[in-house]
Amino acid sequence: MKRLTIDAVKTGLFEVAGERLDNLTKPKGSLGRLEEFAQRLVAISEQSIPPLFSKKAIFTFAGDHGVAGEGVSLYPKEVTEQMVYNFLQGGAGINVLSRHAGIDVVVIDIGVDCDFPEQEGLLIKKAVRGTRNMRKGPAMTRDEAEACIDTGIGIALDYAEKGYALFGTGDMGIANTTPSSAIASVLTGVPVAKVTGKGTGITDEALLHKIRVIEDAVACNKPDLKDPIDVLSKVGGAEIGGIAGLILGAASRRIPIVIDGFISTAGAMIAYSIEPAVKDYMFAAHNSVEVGHGIMLEKMGMRPILDLGLRLGEGTGAALAMFIVEAGLKIYREMATFSEANVSKELS
Amino acid sequence: MKRLTIDAVKTGLFEVAGERLDNLTKPKGSLGRLEEFAQRLVAISEQSIPPLFSKKAIFTFAGDHGVAGEGVSLYPKEVTEQMVYNFLQGGAGINVLSRHAGIDVVVIDIGVDCDFPEQEGLLIKKAVRGTRNMRKGPAMTRDEAEACIDTGIGIALDYAEKGYALFGTGDMGIANTTPSSAIASVLTGVPVAKVTGKGTGITDEALLHKIRVIEDAVACNKPDLKDPIDVLSKVGGAEIGGIAGLILGAASRRIPIVIDGFISTAGAMIAYSIEPAVKDYMFAAHNSVEVGHGIMLEKMGMRPILDLGLRLGEGTGAALAMFIVEAGLKIYREMATFSEANVSKELS
Repeated sequence: MKRLTIDAVKTGLFEVAGERLDNLTKPKGSLGRLEEFAQRLVAISEQSIPPLFSKKAIFTFAGDHGVAGEGVSLYPKEVTEQMVYNFLQGGAGINVLSRHAGIDVVVIDIGVDCDFPEQEGLLIKKAVRGTRNMRKGPAMTRDEAEACIDTGIGIALDYAEKGYALFGTGDMGIANTTPSSAIASVLTGVPVAKVTGKGTGITDEALLHKIRVIEDAVACNKPDLKDPIDVLSKVGGAEIGGIAGLILGAASRRIPIVIDGFISTAGAMIAYSIEPAVKDYMFAAHNSVEVGHGIMLEKMGMRPILDLGLRLGEGTGAALAMFIVEAGLKIYREMATFSEANVSKELS
Repeated sequence: MKRLTIDAVKTGLFEVAGERLDNLTKPKGSLGRLEEFAQRLVAISEQSIPPLFSKKAIFTFAGDHGVAGEGVSLYPKEVTEQMVYNFLQGGAGINVLSRHAGIDVVVIDIGVDCDFPEQEGLLIKKAVRGTRNMRKGPAMTRDEAEACIDTGIGIALDYAEKGYALFGTGDMGIANTTPSSAIASVLTGVPVAKVTGKGTGITDEALLHKIRVIEDAVACNKPDLKDPIDVLSKVGGAEIGGIAGLILGAASRRIPIVIDGFISTAGAMIAYSIEPAVKDYMFAAHNSVEVGHGIMLEKMGMRPILDLGLRLGEGTGAALAMFIVEAGLKIYREMATFSEANVSKELS
């Protein structure tokens, strides 16, 4: 795996930002979490007035899962490939919401079990051609898992170089709530049944089956919770590894990154287990309907920005939350101070 | 008061919208509240595919309050006037967030206790020159209260005519959490102490004083909860009446309207008490820090969109929430269906 330097942010910069925020024409603290986001962006950028985000992108990593053969999803496996084409044609949820928020979408084939022709907007970076069925053995080899992470890192460094200043994460992969629940259980220590939800909307009976499949996968592979690469390779997925790498790469370049929902947060857990300092660069987009999501966020001490009952993935929650994070930056940069606007300060 | 026709929306249209939503390339219901917003917009517009919002505006009503003389706010009364100038210069929170979301800001002097010169972006529609101190007697006469509502209605009809298709509400008025708490208490039946918060950030001691002032105002004026105009005139404020009128006018023209925070919701309670059918046209922007806000929303059966710890007013929460409501419309209009995108539907 690529070596990176990731430093925790300097918390003293929160106070620098807080002073400016308290001089803006509003009661102290009255813009709530927007002020918190502004403070974090000052600390991340190490600039007293951070620049606007010139370019923003959501990286939607796509991969197939051998465990789909166990009947854990409502959709057939070929939907992963079909949805990649939908992304490229601009008809998916992530396309609509990214256009709405002025964000570019970058689609990465990191592990889809089919061959795409070269085309605009698609990065073909296959680390695997679908994972193997984790109920029967490791989903990936250790080398494959490391290749997924390296791919994510490489993309982060590349897009940092291109001037992208705010990242979002996204995923596509039929059956990928299954490895995500496995990762959630292993890395939080919470039993599988408590971190496993209905994904695309399976029945109560299918949920019980899904839980058994995950329990079997964990029992059969014995992932080592002290070794996040081991966890990723045995019970993870290619897109989850790509997202983990993207986060590590973003943090190494001091780029704030908005983490979408359940699958993205499984990737964040892997990145956080490799290097806890990544937390300072991450913003949790929303509170997913998937039950294991909140448990992982709590483990990392992250508080979601939105709570809109979303459970689509792709980066859809990240697109909306990036707009809110950007709002925090703009109030910090653009609001007048009391003295600039000749507004009286509070009575003492 | 102007006579309007306000009809509840046809709930059958929710199903029409729901059918299209279920055919879009996503698991059913997986865009959560965005789908709910799309359904409501279809019902409001009575069009199976509603058009995009060509123009959007937030109406920030400003007024002064005689009760400010009781020392209920952290800021001196002249801040109302000063902030109106800040709005017109584009330096306030509402300006920044509206620019971010592509929304126009219309500032209305409906009751500020000073004379503004005519200028771009300001509507001078004084119904009062500051209210009177409600602790000592009615804040306004019944005629003044009706004039406030008529002003709001007139503005709604005027901007509907100009092609504005999504409205947001906003307020400015030093001390205006005090009349808003009074309205909340009278119209929900919850004691004053339970619907009164710290507004701009007063001390615990000042909060106890504020509660006494409101209790005195209610006891002295005996507002009739069956008569919302009586409540508005006795313990309300000019901007609260303007907001109530704006909501009534918007509903009469089938225009969706996003209600900002605590003060705007007090206006919404007045409008709802006059005509409960307005509820179908309202979206609750966010969950304010002010304790009485959630109590009023619950009374009307409204669920806030955002929860970001905001308590600034001006329309700041509405600006962010309008972006989210618009996202609901766009996913409905722009996402590909399963057949358009050649994506397989769920396994049966």
